[in-house]
Amino acid sequence: MSEEKMVSLDIIDEQLIKKAEQEGIETMWDRKKAMKTPCGFGEQGVCCRICAMGPCRVSPVEGKGAQRGICGATADTIVARNFARMVAAGTSAHSDHARDIAHVMHMASRDGSYTIKDEKKLLVLAEEWEVKTEGRDIYDIAHEVAEVALNEFGKPFGTLRFPERAPEPRKKIWKELGIEPRAIDREIATIMHSTSIGCTSDAESLLKMSMRTSLSNGWGGSMMGSEFTDIIFGTPTPTVTEANLGVLEEKQVNILLHGHDPSLSEMIVMAANDPEMLKLAQEVGAEGINLAGICCTGNEVTMRHGVKLAGTFYQQELAVLTGVIEAVIVDVQCIFPSLTPVTDCYHTKFITTSPKAKVTGATHIEFNEAVALESAKAIVKAAVENYANRKQDKIFIPKSKAQAITGYSVEAVVKQLDRVVNSHIDSQGTVKPLADVLKAGVLRGAAGIVGCNNPKVRHEYSHIEIMKKLIANDVIVVTTGCAAQAAAKAGLLSKDAAKLAGKGLQAVCELVDIPPVIHLGSCVDNTRILKLVSAVAKFMDVDNSDLPVVGVAPEWMSEKAVAIGTYVVSSGIDVFLGVVPPVTGSKEVMDILTNKIEDMTGAKFFVDTDPHALTDVMLARIEEKREKLEQKLAARAEEKECAAELA
Amino acid sequence: MSEEKMVSLDIIDEQLIKKAEQEGIETMWDRKKAMKTPCGFGEQGVCCRICAMGPCRVSPVEGKGAQRGICGATADTIVARNFARMVAAGTSAHSDHARDIAHVMHMASRDGSYTIKDEKKLLVLAEEWEVKTEGRDIYDIAHEVAEVALNEFGKPFGTLRFPERAPEPRKKIWKELGIEPRAIDREIATIMHSTSIGCTSDAESLLKMSMRTSLSNGWGGSMMGSEFTDIIFGTPTPTVTEANLGVLEEKQVNILLHGHDPSLSEMIVMAANDPEMLKLAQEVGAEGINLAGICCTGNEVTMRHGVKLAGTFYQQELAVLTGVIEAVIVDVQCIFPSLTPVTDCYHTKFITTSPKAKVTGATHIEFNEAVALESAKAIVKAAVENYANRKQDKIFIPKSKAQAITGYSVEAVVKQLDRVVNSHIDSQGTVKPLADVLKAGVLRGAAGIVGCNNPKVRHEYSHIEIMKKLIANDVIVVTTGCAAQAAAKAGLLSKDAAKLAGKGLQAVCELVDIPPVIHLGSCVDNTRILKLVSAVAKFMDVDNSDLPVVGVAPEWMSEKAVAIGTYVVSSGIDVFLGVVPPVTGSKEVMDILTNKIEDMTGAKFFVDTDPHALTDVMLARIEEKREKLEQKLAARAEEKECAAELA
Repeated sequence: MSEEKMVSLDIIDEQLIKKAEQEGIETMWDRKKAMKTPCGFGEQGVCCRICAMGPCRVSPVEGKGAQRGICGATADTIVARNFARMVAAGTSAHSDHARDIAHVMHMASRDGSYTIKDEKKLLVLAEEWEVKTEGRDIYDIAHEVAEVALNEFGKPFGTLRFPERAPEPRKKIWKELGIEPRAIDREIATIMHSTSIGCTSDAESLLKMSMRTSLSNGWGGSMMGSEFTDIIFGTPTPTVTEANLGVLEEKQVNILLHGHDPSLSEMIVMAANDPEMLKLAQEVGAEGINLAGICCTGNEVTMRHGVKLAGTFYQQELAVLTGVIEAVIVDVQCIFPSLTPVTDCYHTKFITTSPKAKVTGATHIEFNEAVALESAKAIVKAAVENYANRKQDKIFIPKSKAQAITGYSVEAVVKQLDRVVNSHIDSQGTVKPLADVLKAGVLRGAAGIVGCNNPKVRHEYSHIEIMKKLIANDVIVVTTGCAAQAAAKAGLLSKDAAKLAGKGLQAVCELVDIPPVIHLGSCVDNTRILKLVSAVAKFMDVDNSDLPVVGVAPEWMSEKAVAIGTYVVSSGIDVFLGVVPPVTGSKEVMDILTNKIEDMTGAKFFVDTDPHALTDVMLARIEEKREKLEQKLAARAEEKECAAELA
Repeated sequence: MSEEKMVSLDIIDEQLIKKAEQEGIETMWDRKKAMKTPCGFGEQGVCCRICAMGPCRVSPVEGKGAQRGICGATADTIVARNFARMVAAGTSAHSDHARDIAHVMHMASRDGSYTIKDEKKLLVLAEEWEVKTEGRDIYDIAHEVAEVALNEFGKPFGTLRFPERAPEPRKKIWKELGIEPRAIDREIATIMHSTSIGCTSDAESLLKMSMRTSLSNGWGGSMMGSEFTDIIFGTPTPTVTEANLGVLEEKQVNILLHGHDPSLSEMIVMAANDPEMLKLAQEVGAEGINLAGICCTGNEVTMRHGVKLAGTFYQQELAVLTGVIEAVIVDVQCIFPSLTPVTDCYHTKFITTSPKAKVTGATHIEFNEAVALESAKAIVKAAVENYANRKQDKIFIPKSKAQAITGYSVEAVVKQLDRVVNSHIDSQGTVKPLADVLKAGVLRGAAGIVGCNNPKVRHEYSHIEIMKKLIANDVIVVTTGCAAQAAAKAGLLSKDAAKLAGKGLQAVCELVDIPPVIHLGSCVDNTRILKLVSAVAKFMDVDNSDLPVVGVAPEWMSEKAVAIGTYVVSSGIDVFLGVVPPVTGSKEVMDILTNKIEDMTGAKFFVDTDPHALTDVMLARIEEKREKLEQKLAARAEEKECAAELA
């Protein structure tokens, strides 16, 4: 095996990469190699393709080379515009996903494919949004709440509703900065406008707009995605599953679910359990239908149904290389166009389902939400019927898999915390136990580790190293996206992993009965982290930025990650990146993102490609925040005491 | 003067470029030169910066070099995604502009800065949109119409309203292609989503989405921009003005209005005519206040007030170089960030006014629509007070200027046409005379020449050469944007220019009393062209694509132009480009845009950097369409005859 390909942490991946080589199949690693040196201008963000006078490439070095594009845009302007467009694109992805979920809730009915599974959550939301509930059918309420939600994308007046959930001091910061998000789509359109030729050139202004737009993601589209998915498909509860390509079954029909939108994957899960489909599977000689998830669709269905996790973003090609996948069923986002040539080498059907993501050469079976289950059955049927076409000589299923617990919604976390509440003193259903252990220092802090894979770094190495180091230092980890799948594969989502944790975290894991690394869901579910952190901040009557919590994206690659990182920092939580974003060409943008933004939001970005060094900074920052928090709480206690004395 | 700079058609520009050289001031031409060879990947559209696994550059040549990006995206995918994002950005610019105008109409009041100037137009629109008018105050109607309009940006259900105005066969095509635009911002968000990592890779699908999004511009935002601006500030009527930098006045306060949004510029016009401001000008020793427009703001204020045109997009720096500009007042779009260093070399104040377009180093005086006139006065005051600071040794005003007639709204054109209506036979107020001369062949066809300047070609040379050749061949020209200003400067907007026209067009110009090249407004006003063409098509009971009309963008540079070109082709009108768009790296995209799209829409793109060759193709295409139209009309007449005989 060539050295370039020795980039994976996982022996089973290496076996499959070798198989690909032998069969002459091109994978991501071959393409990475063919790409040679990436364009330095692009990497530093100083390439501008925003109008047709260019493309322009300005020098990232002051006084050397072209300092301005043809219109006069400086490196600062170009970098900031490109950054802002990444945020806009990332926001559009998450939010457009949420729009579909809201539309699905709008068509939910008691006897339809989509029903209301978590009525309580719907009623809480209805009350929050002042939708009348008394004496109304739950479906009427659902439809009205959905309509209110759909209007969050395009209402002409006012600001979004969900940011109201943030701690008071945070809302004040947003107001003062002028970054309270208005309608979600409007923020995207405005960024696209303001970054176009001859509009905003001021980097700080562009970054503030990016912050506002990112908030319309975190506290808008994404939050809507999580909440509505819970309402329609059920709020996750802890469930045991397995992860890695070893979950594929030689004697079953294997369907790989890949993408993001649960309105498809939930129906596929239902269809795959349909007696008619199971009978059909038997008829074609299979022992059953085995669903396995990739990427965030994998996270969605494992959170609610314990569907096994085949793997992460970078394993999408490798899964097909096993030769036992009857169909890869996808909807939107993170789908390699290369799945066409790879599946072409096998019997595997590559089925696209969304008009928003057609892939050249794939079989497009458009998913119709109006007849969702029927639509899903047609797709599953195509997969089952393909079982007979397997090429037996091309089969290789790696053996490795790990046990994992998934399904931790915020509600599920709180329920676990209830285990340690002394119900004689405290009420149940709060985050008090978490706040207490953080305050006491039993837990030093908490980290949200999220995001993708990126061939710029060794796969999953950063995820796993950072997680291990953090838990060993009594920092509890919550995780989503492909980071969560990396954790699952490494066994970190099992309760057994508590043995890798420090004493404090070990004790917490045991008492609360949780693993040290907690799977919170897909990438839209990063809003569960926002909710949890905000709940603790509110409970302690402080701001998010006062808490010893960090956000980490060790191997990010998507524009969604840029949007997430920006809303996390804007929400007062430091963000640590393991892949350098294309902003290094601008001194000003770098200075704002890694320094000045802290004066605005109380948080900032840290970047280091060395996971160990990055974690050291994280731990130091957590301790720094702890100290300040302690002082703040002490000062407040003193004030109270004084006030009491005076009174 | 170096050869690289000898690129302007206009002797006065050359003088100013020389002045810049002497004073050591950097202009667009210096930056163009410093940029050296532009990036070939970028120029061909095969550079992908959509995720952080890259940047990736794939080879535009099949079988040679990297054929796929790291995710597997081919040149076709990358080019189509980049194209789609240009359309989305262009759409966002026009539409976000229209949003502001709609908001302004929503705040209009009888005694406020913004009033309703064209009540009739408002009432017609209210009826079209089923807003009740009977017995209602015109401002109540305006506010409701504005709210309906604002909801066009984000309504969760249904499709846009204005496309209903298109000819029936056109609407049928849009329906069948599945490209009826939904809410404007939603289309932008969906494109951004679908072009993000791992969504749509299919070029045709991406181009269809681009068409849908572009329609939400042409038949959405832009059309709203034109209509609402007319309603609030008056529908233009023909007015005589002058154009070119010679309109600047040595003994007056010169204010350069640059940008796009009339809600600012109209107030500046009002403020500059305010006795208080005129008195202040006298006090500082000036003989008056001279407004001069640049770019589309120039077009907006000349259309309605005959404000003189200082020049086009590429002259924004040159205007400042005269040394007599007290202030450059800008809002959004097409504003060179380089105006900061250029104005810094003079006394000129560079005043930004929009939160959507802050420029580093400019003086930001935020324009507040709620107190619009007061806000405008403060800005004008800053300009007037700056008169005393002129550096007398740095003054040079070129002498050249030309007379022009502007102000042709569709309504104004129809009114001119009424001159030749035999009112005993035909009713007035229709496009019949235009349809008649087109059918008869007195006019061979009509061309809409639009768009920007681009240093890739000799400035205005293409605009003027194409216009001259077309009118000489009896093709009437309507024009907007910087193309219209080029025409104005070249004297083509004067009635006198009819002498350059062919016999047929000459006769029409004389009878109808119009110039051979007709100024229809700013770049959002391209929708006036859509309206006019659709009116003729409807009158003749054919589709737009049946008519011998063409759209031309000889020197385009903005993403807005990409959106415009796409909605024009989608509306059934051929588009001729004089600057090559960044799509040549994809055989498939090229084939769709310049060939296959005709099967879908009845129109396609033509590209040639040689204006003469491009015009030859135009003329041939016009004759081709004429022939087909004749056959269609003859066949229809025959059918009618048969039917009559049978009956």
